Amino acid sequence: MATISDTLLKRRTIRKYTSEPVDDKLLNELLVMGCRTSTTGNMQVYSIIITTDTQVKNDLAPLHFNQKMITEAPVVLTFCADFNRFNKWCLLRKAEPGYDNFLSFITAAIDALLVAQTFCIAAESKGLGICYLGTTTYNAHKIIKVLKLPRGVVPITTVTLGWPSEKPEQVDRLPLEAIIHKQTYADYSDEDIIKYYHPKEEREDSTQYVRENNKETLAQVFTDIRYKKADNVYFSKILLQVLKDQGFMEQ
Amino acid sequence: MATISDTLLKRRTIRKYTSEPVDDKLLNELLVMGCRTSTTGNMQVYSIIITTDTQVKNDLAPLHFNQKMITEAPVVLTFCADFNRFNKWCLLRKAEPGYDNFLSFITAAIDALLVAQTFCIAAESKGLGICYLGTTTYNAHKIIKVLKLPRGVVPITTVTLGWPSEKPEQVDRLPLEAIIHKQTYADYSDEDIIKYYHPKEEREDSTQYVRENNKETLAQVFTDIRYKKADNVYFSKILLQVLKDQGFMEQ
Repeated sequence: MATISDTLLKRRTIRKYTSEPVDDKLLNELLVMGCRTSTTGNMQVYSIIITTDTQVKNDLAPLHFNQKMITEAPVVLTFCADFNRFNKWCLLRKAEPGYDNFLSFITAAIDALLVAQTFCIAAESKGLGICYLGTTTYNAHKIIKVLKLPRGVVPITTVTLGWPSEKPEQVDRLPLEAIIHKQTYADYSDEDIIKYYHPKEEREDSTQYVRENNKETLAQVFTDIRYKKADNVYFSKILLQVLKDQGFMEQ
Repeated sequence: MATISDTLLKRRTIRKYTSEPVDDKLLNELLVMGCRTSTTGNMQVYSIIITTDTQVKNDLAPLHFNQKMITEAPVVLTFCADFNRFNKWCLLRKAEPGYDNFLSFITAAIDALLVAQTFCIAAESKGLGICYLGTTTYNAHKIIKVLKLPRGVVPITTVTLGWPSEKPEQVDRLPLEAIIHKQTYADYSDEDIIKYYHPKEEREDSTQYVRENNKETLAQVFTDIRYKKADNVYFSKILLQVLKDQGFMEQ
């Protein structure tokens, strides 16, 4: 069996899967491991929606910008911040829940994300491949409809899961010293930034990416094409409205 | 070495640590593993503040409600959503960053939390103990001052790290069927809620907890003492102001 170090150090995101399904018993084991993750006050304010049905996956696909993983992966997992279950328990037990506010949303989102990552590591340790879909927070309002999420529940991230049918190169990462700060935050000088990002900019795949997109710099590919201000502003408004609609902005 | 299943299934949060420091080389290895975690568009929009200095830990302690782990753990790690570094890179490379909005905050928070959880699993696999502190989002504004976090950076969670000097009982969890939903969300009936929460309510530690707090139900201990509406509302306002002050609500 792979060691933990190997699993964590040699991992890569997998976007292509074989047609082999993920055994229910194995999936269950992974979920049990996920649910041992730390959770605020042991409240477990999250839910996991497991979608294997072709029709539901087809309904989800456009909400994830038709990324092929959604329909091609045998399993799609949507990790949700969920105070609905806890609130129902409180109301049944003569307790008045006070979780219809932004802090509670963040608390539940943290719970959901930590569980998601444990689940992914457990899956990868068994040889499965995963891919996170950031589109969940873009189209939360539509995902809520497809997955029938009640008030108190907000989808935070989606993971596709399956047996790998590709072994892509590992992507680059910034040097560790670019990410960590000792004692307190030491803000970056221009020289620091150039030093830390230069290796990324010099990569063949980066320069090709810049050329293909007719841009002058790699940073412009991010700001002008991949993660544009107009999109971010548009989806920010929707996401804040989702929090309101799902009952997390009552303060 | 522990298998991954063992590490994940047998874990418990550790709040008491020996005085033995965590070796720099080991800490570094754990951080490198953490940074292989999936990240949105490989932007790595997070930073990790590693605090070992007694004075800085003392300054942080009251912001975490003087939980002893902060001063007693050899290492305190504050995981932050961080667009500051990425924005600086964009500006140096003739690109106009559009990340001063709520969606970008959530994107960066997701990045930071996934890394935090990988780091914790890596640490636990080496025999170290960790404890998450949910107080980070309560007192983010004060933590920002102590850790000197610039605009574009918001602390999301804090982890204390050290060699365990306790082995507490594993805490209970809800049954898996309470957490997962197949295909779409099946909302809970009263009977479901009672069935899922009953074992928790019946535990000796739960009934003792209810008695000690002079409450009628376990749920009331949460709503009236541990996670009160008034506190949640108060800290929600502060956290939303923090997002504004740190430059994430410009849409």
